[in-house]
Amino acid sequence: MRIIIFGGAGFIGKKLALELLNLGEIAIDGSEPKPISELVLFDKFKAEGLPTDDRLVVMNEDICDSAVIEKLLAKHVDVIFHLAAIVSGEAEKNFDLGMQVNLHANLTLLEQCRALGYAPTMVFASSCGVFGGELTDVIEDHTGPTPKSSYGTQKAVVDLLINDYTRRGFIKGRSIRLPTIAIRPGKPNAATSSFISSIIREPLQGKPANCPVSAESKFWILSPKKVVENFIIACELPNEAWKGNWVVNLPGLTTPIADMVEQLEVVGGKEAAELITWEPDEFLQSIVLTWPPELVTTKGIALGFKKDENVGEIIQAFIDEDL
Amino acid sequence: MRIIIFGGAGFIGKKLALELLNLGEIAIDGSEPKPISELVLFDKFKAEGLPTDDRLVVMNEDICDSAVIEKLLAKHVDVIFHLAAIVSGEAEKNFDLGMQVNLHANLTLLEQCRALGYAPTMVFASSCGVFGGELTDVIEDHTGPTPKSSYGTQKAVVDLLINDYTRRGFIKGRSIRLPTIAIRPGKPNAATSSFISSIIREPLQGKPANCPVSAESKFWILSPKKVVENFIIACELPNEAWKGNWVVNLPGLTTPIADMVEQLEVVGGKEAAELITWEPDEFLQSIVLTWPPELVTTKGIALGFKKDENVGEIIQAFIDEDL
Repeated sequence: MRIIIFGGAGFIGKKLALELLNLGEIAIDGSEPKPISELVLFDKFKAEGLPTDDRLVVMNEDICDSAVIEKLLAKHVDVIFHLAAIVSGEAEKNFDLGMQVNLHANLTLLEQCRALGYAPTMVFASSCGVFGGELTDVIEDHTGPTPKSSYGTQKAVVDLLINDYTRRGFIKGRSIRLPTIAIRPGKPNAATSSFISSIIREPLQGKPANCPVSAESKFWILSPKKVVENFIIACELPNEAWKGNWVVNLPGLTTPIADMVEQLEVVGGKEAAELITWEPDEFLQSIVLTWPPELVTTKGIALGFKKDENVGEIIQAFIDEDL
Repeated sequence: MRIIIFGGAGFIGKKLALELLNLGEIAIDGSEPKPISELVLFDKFKAEGLPTDDRLVVMNEDICDSAVIEKLLAKHVDVIFHLAAIVSGEAEKNFDLGMQVNLHANLTLLEQCRALGYAPTMVFASSCGVFGGELTDVIEDHTGPTPKSSYGTQKAVVDLLINDYTRRGFIKGRSIRLPTIAIRPGKPNAATSSFISSIIREPLQGKPANCPVSAESKFWILSPKKVVENFIIACELPNEAWKGNWVVNLPGLTTPIADMVEQLEVVGGKEAAELITWEPDEFLQSIVLTWPPELVTTKGIALGFKKDENVGEIIQAFIDEDL
């Protein structure tokens, strides 16, 4: 199996790469697992702390460079995990860049995959940020995307195209809509949801962090550990299991910020929780508060996708894995 | 007011043009109506039977030619009615052509409108063909698109982009999802729904027509007269009335084919109904039988969009207007 991870230097991409190298094999479309012979980590940015491994190929290139992609795809590829994106905050502030990377590069990539003629598997990191409406809404599997951000729009567009390219047999696409991933290791980034990780990660290391929304605000979250499992599940599921719709809302946990702070106190003490400041941020609120925190993911659960049991487990996993 | 109709030589585009010339004025975004000074009929194909009118400018050009579009937009434009498309059957058979016209040309057009800097009004002809699933489903306003055709996919993608460009203030977009339009005058075309008009239109003129689905099959239909009214309503509604979502499923009439044939007998006699042949067509069925015939269009009705009262009225309007 030759695998490409676009966005392989991001924290999920890297965790996924390490897990794949560790597993050593993967199945596609319900077949028997086969050994992984090559794993290409493709990212504009350099990944740090990678293991020495003969199967690992690191490429620091731009996904918008179609000539580079063409060369990359010239050798048979079995699976593409596609996590490369301009994050929500940046795509909102820089419309052209968001359109370029989150839409146009994907249009080109889909065409290049179609040209291969053998329908490679492509697992695309979509987002529950495709939804946006009244916060009281409960999102079900059939609920339509009504994004209130350009990022959400671009993800929803690619969902549709992945479905059509798969229906026509050009690729074996799977578009998994990710909840807010928490707790992210590393540093805060331009994702509008970045603070949801920061308010736990930073105080646990004695650093301050700002929460731009009220403690009552709720979010739909999933841990990095479970999202990595879910990428692999999406790849391995047979094409038919999706019943003609290869887009799925991933299961998650509806979590009030207050519950996260409470759990932070349990593991880090009162002094950790006091490192959180509560300055509202209108720009961040205008995006993150349109994301629905309540989803009924009947299809995702039926397909076998995983979620976390509670916030305490999520924080403990972060401490064990990333601190 | 300077108005452009893309797809102006199609039967709806032409009816819309004649209605606008007749009205002589139009409002945009809830403002007072103003006189129409120029009406550009843009189409790859020649429109026949146009009236002589100083306000009318006919352009036979390709919407995929971005240089032509740029020139067209160099002079201030108030309203764009966008009906140009590769129809469902053709977009399914010729994937590249469908993507070119129904997706890429629109991406370019949206960017060219954004570059104008003054947010022209754009009413886009989307389609209830964005839906596709179990025929027992009832489609509501919040139901997500799950197209089972490339045409439906391309329309659903443009819906999303029109919403985002409007939310950001680049255009004042309105995407109206058209039911199957019946009875279409003229000749059968490559739209997979073409037969729904043919089985009435042809027998009324003593000609045979084939119905590729069973008499029990139901469709969501709207007359040409009402769709023209709805294009103008969409243009005139204030931006705020749409409440942050400028896409709407148009009201229509759930109609079994049997009801249409019954009404054909009423006006054309038994000999007219006997001109219908009933040869199934797998390709047509694979698309049209995924279209939901039952929609609850609460939003469309609240916004004031119009529908027909019954099939008899639709057939009578066709006889009066087009025969």
